[in-house]
Amino acid sequence: MNAIDTLIAAIQEKQSPIVMGLDPTLENIPTFLKEASISKYGDTIKASVDSIWNFNQRLIEVLHPYIPCIKLQMACYELFGSEGMEVLEKTVKLAKQYKLSVIADGKRNDIGSSAALYAKAYLGERPLITGKPIKSDVDFLTVNPLLGSDSLTPFIEEAKKNGKGIFVLVRTSNPSATEYQEAKLGDSFLYEKIAQDLQQYAKDLQGESGYSLVGAVVGATWKEEQKKLRETMPNVFFLVPGYGAQGAKAKDILPSFDAQGGGAIINASRSIMYAYQNKIYNPTLESSRFAQAALAAVKDMLSDIETLRQ
Amino acid sequence: MNAIDTLIAAIQEKQSPIVMGLDPTLENIPTFLKEASISKYGDTIKASVDSIWNFNQRLIEVLHPYIPCIKLQMACYELFGSEGMEVLEKTVKLAKQYKLSVIADGKRNDIGSSAALYAKAYLGERPLITGKPIKSDVDFLTVNPLLGSDSLTPFIEEAKKNGKGIFVLVRTSNPSATEYQEAKLGDSFLYEKIAQDLQQYAKDLQGESGYSLVGAVVGATWKEEQKKLRETMPNVFFLVPGYGAQGAKAKDILPSFDAQGGGAIINASRSIMYAYQNKIYNPTLESSRFAQAALAAVKDMLSDIETLRQ
Repeated sequence: MNAIDTLIAAIQEKQSPIVMGLDPTLENIPTFLKEASISKYGDTIKASVDSIWNFNQRLIEVLHPYIPCIKLQMACYELFGSEGMEVLEKTVKLAKQYKLSVIADGKRNDIGSSAALYAKAYLGERPLITGKPIKSDVDFLTVNPLLGSDSLTPFIEEAKKNGKGIFVLVRTSNPSATEYQEAKLGDSFLYEKIAQDLQQYAKDLQGESGYSLVGAVVGATWKEEQKKLRETMPNVFFLVPGYGAQGAKAKDILPSFDAQGGGAIINASRSIMYAYQNKIYNPTLESSRFAQAALAAVKDMLSDIETLRQ
Repeated sequence: MNAIDTLIAAIQEKQSPIVMGLDPTLENIPTFLKEASISKYGDTIKASVDSIWNFNQRLIEVLHPYIPCIKLQMACYELFGSEGMEVLEKTVKLAKQYKLSVIADGKRNDIGSSAALYAKAYLGERPLITGKPIKSDVDFLTVNPLLGSDSLTPFIEEAKKNGKGIFVLVRTSNPSATEYQEAKLGDSFLYEKIAQDLQQYAKDLQGESGYSLVGAVVGATWKEEQKKLRETMPNVFFLVPGYGAQGAKAKDILPSFDAQGGGAIINASRSIMYAYQNKIYNPTLESSRFAQAALAAVKDMLSDIETLRQ
């Protein structure tokens, strides 16, 4: 089974098309966790990343039965340099112990030779000087397609080789997505042309599920576009960001699903991670209850999605 | 002085518009360095990155009088995870000790809230829980503009705040650059529209030199395009990749310079780093002479550029 078939099986088993975005920012980590880290390490970067690690760890431990997948926003970890990357690696490892799929959300891109190195870094292996290389635990990487096909193929080739997958930016969830993504190529918008190209790759790379290791990022904030893109890309699985903090609800995501209610996974980050700051999920606003509040937010999101499917 | 004025002053002082790309890959590191690292650390990731560190260190020590700037291809370091990022950080620190400008070539991009974190990571400060944040030593970050203005402005704002700069992908050096970058927006190609937008930002952000903290990546492999882009962006400094291993020579880069021979810096990575594998620069192919061979390649590149300017 490749990474996309594994993800689809887990979505069905857990009846949950939800990705939890673990995109922690220090100011939103509960104070008691930060105080504990300071008492261990002083007020250092080590303490900053330790508090993030403890936050991630608890969320994964409590939520793993309810979600098939986590997504790590690389910017949140790179902010803390090599020590941040260490916590990213620990988080990936923990998630894999719980058999969660892991998306590294790095939106990586470069000319072919460098794209091949990014692909190896996340979807392949770390080289040793003479010994057997060390496999990456990440399952999916997000990729920015601006540089075109010779930049995309190294990611696809590496994914294919290792049974991993990629999600290529097609239509991003931010308001300015219209500015450059709606440039025209013949009769199509640029984002539509990218979608057509992805479907071409996907056709030949289908797993057992009919979906391929080439996925697409399609923002929940664009309802009409989702509908057309679902038609253009029948073999492309969608990663749909924009739920919750960015304003979208389940009804806005309906067009991304296929006729069987599959074909898409919905990301929510801030609305789950920081649910403890929301009285709906944490009436007393007691920060020690952050993981339970996150679970309540996930259950609410699941019932929002469930209502819709019926 | 902001980062772009500092860079321009160093180019003039050293009479050298050259960026050395430090994009090391393990297979091209001289064997004697790799053996030394194995004897210290065994055949581990630690040894892999130690050999890269020793390679970088020696190149910077020998070449710093002849080059104003280094560029670090992030993929080469991310390939080794947190340990690779540690070597990246050490390399940046060493380069700053020699007063070199440093470009982190990460082609980062994301929606606004995450773009702001990438900007902080490389152009701003790492947060502590309560204490004074720790400044990044990097001067410039490369940025992919596909997500549009609300994704670009956090990078520009952070650069402005800290006297740093960015280089935005306008026309990349790879052959497939034509595929999506030549989508049309009105009468312009997408890459031309991006150039027009960058000039708008740049106009209001000029340093003493007349150039702005908003720079552009323009591939040496596109001669006609360079000429037009130089006209479109009079206040935008160019980072020009594609020299050497990608096939371009100095004459191909002429259109990127302004009337005074300024306004651009040329990147070469493989042709400098691995000059020891080239009999022209290292007749005996003795790998212990890698830094001297790199210096010979830089001097050759300088005279290639000099001929042109006359």
